Amino acid sequence: MTDAADADVKYRVSNPAYAERVRASFGRQAFMGFIGAEIAEVAPGAVEIRLPYRAELAQQHGFFHGGIVGTIADNACGYASFSLADAASSVLTVEYKLNLMAPAAGDLLIARGRVLRPGRTLVVAQADVFAVREGREKQVATALATLMLMAGMADEPHDQSTPGNKSLGMDGTP
Amino acid sequence: MTDAADADVKYRVSNPAYAERVRASFGRQAFMGFIGAEIAEVAPGAVEIRLPYRAELAQQHGFFHGGIVGTIADNACGYASFSLADAASSVLTVEYKLNLMAPAAGDLLIARGRVLRPGRTLVVAQADVFAVREGREKQVATALATLMLMAGMADEPHDQSTPGNKSLGMDGTP
Amino acid sequence: MTDAADADVKYRVSNPAYAERVRASFGRQAFMGFIGAEIAEVAPGAVEIRLPYRAELAQQHGFFHGGIVGTIADNACGYASFSLADAASSVLTVEYKLNLMAPAAGDLLIARGRVLRPGRTLVVAQADVFAVREGREKQVATALATLMLMAGMADEPHDQSTPGNKSLGMDGTP
Amino acid sequence: MTDAADADVKYRVSNPAYAERVRASFGRQAFMGFIGAEIAEVAPGAVEIRLPYRAELAQQHGFFHGGIVGTIADNACGYASFSLADAASSVLTVEYKLNLMAPAAGDLLIARGRVLRPGRTLVVAQADVFAVREGREKQVATALATLMLMAGMADEPHDQSTPGNKSLGMDGTP
Repeated sequence: MTDAADADVKYRVSNPAYAERVRASFGRQAFMGFIGAEIAEVAPGAVEIRLPYRAELAQQHGFFHGGIVGTIADNACGYASFSLADAASSVLTVEYKLNLMAPAAGDLLIARGRVLRPGRTLVVAQADVFAVREGREKQVATALATLMLMAGMADEPHDQSTPGNKSLGMDGTP
Repeated sequence: MTDAADADVKYRVSNPAYAERVRASFGRQAFMGFIGAEIAEVAPGAVEIRLPYRAELAQQHGFFHGGIVGTIADNACGYASFSLADAASSVLTVEYKLNLMAPAAGDLLIARGRVLRPGRTLVVAQADVFAVREGREKQVATALATLMLMAGMADEPHDQSTPGNKSLGMDGTP
Repeated sequence: MTDAADADVKYRVSNPAYAERVRASFGRQAFMGFIGAEIAEVAPGAVEIRLPYRAELAQQHGFFHGGIVGTIADNACGYASFSLADAASSVLTVEYKLNLMAPAAGDLLIARGRVLRPGRTLVVAQADVFAVREGREKQVATALATLMLMAGMADEPHDQSTPGNKSLGMDGTP
Repeated sequence: MTDAADADVKYRVSNPAYAERVRASFGRQAFMGFIGAEIAEVAPGAVEIRLPYRAELAQQHGFFHGGIVGTIADNACGYASFSLADAASSVLTVEYKLNLMAPAAGDLLIARGRVLRPGRTLVVAQADVFAVREGREKQVATALATLMLMAGMADEPHDQSTPGNKSLGMDGTP
């Protein structure tokens, strides 16, 4: 899976500049920078997020915290879906379910998200999360998510003091 | 809900020092300190986690990142369950499902977790997450989680170089 | 909770004839009649479904089959949401998560559904399921569901030979 | 996937007679016979369930009821897991999440379940559900489930009048 060539493009791309848009949005998520996550791969309907281990990201046993696993799984589903959105639409996570399968012990965490069903309004996506130790990947979690395409919703920052901001709807949600 | 007095104790407490044990374990989670979360209340089968807003915790619209919402929801379910564990047992999150209901816009995020079913091995817990803005709480998410009580599993840090560590079982999971 | 009076109406009713519409739709679900389920109570944003035990509904241990528990939990979330829809809208279940807490052993199964978040497009609802044995209720499951309001979608039967039926959208889903 | 030959056996089989045991247990589920479901394929960690359309299984639009979709998805996860159990163990569904992707419109419903993580105590499994119309399969749902292996728990019917039955534990659940 690379940005440049997708021999096996499964989904219709609405925005030819999807990869740049995904990377720019990811770059605007301050929390991703804070924990040190990067978006490694972007394809139509699929992305890969990587996060090196740091002691600050641990739970009490020294492994990656479950919240970190959930965070990059959720984000991998979100950006896999966002890659199929047209240039004027954004994506919101409606809900997700995460199964933790093994302790996230390793030097690197990788989340691979892919779209299962590209709906007009609702998208179903799945992400698998792997911990890499001594060069070997081991699956530590899987997530199944529902996302919503928001037509005409910008992906730029909001002013929190403007609660009535139209771009997110009346209460900022669907 | 306070540590000191619980007029309406719904669940049997296995460890009289449950509140201290919950707080000590929370204190060992480096990630909680990194994001600035604190455990505000601990009762039998229920906890409250609070997290003030910081720009580092934001997604692209300036709200709390969904991963942050999921993190404290998961942790609120986990420590609500841990409060009922006996002194020699620990708790693992098996899975959780999170519904995001509104943007997490505010100065403070509060997650309140409670045990729904205190099983001998499996615990079902739920957490509601609220954003506080101008002193008013608004629910932004709810999570439904399954957790597992691990008899004889320590809550102290592991040495990541010792993959065979007995206290977590063969692969560190159930 | 009764049809007639709701002292504590929490949600705005869009269709004054909501209770009749819920009961009529429930009556059109052949599967509900097949298993013997009835809708016992309808209030704004909340319903109760009851299902007496029959040997045909059992799994291998003689308890209500888990699929039966999931069916009435899903339906309780669906009709709780449908009670808030306007007269020209219908409701689809997007997804649900079900936690089974105890064997569904008893003479009667009761599912109580309630809306947690009444959105304009998406609704979050929860249902608790109880088994009644010797007159005592015991909770056996809880479900957390996401539903979608479909404006202008009829609630009457479709002709399966007409796949292009507009009222459900191109592929019959959001 | 057939009973006879599994070129690509991914999981360790604990009970050589797993296929017979799966089929016998399925045969004891009265509800499967009531709706007309049959278990078509059994392999180590994977099963296929088939259910022809009948008007009694419909919701108000004439499609398979969502509860039916959930029922065979849940059961496909359950029996995929059960196929890996040793001869003295049984399996309970702890929880599952179901995403409905399209209306279940067709003459036949097929659920294919497979084990994602075969734990010693907890198993994670996934099932995809397809509706067949005019000979073509279309995916209508996916489910992600957690199941529990119960050592020493029989798979035969219980006497409902014996609530203390040991084989299911004190309250019949983990």
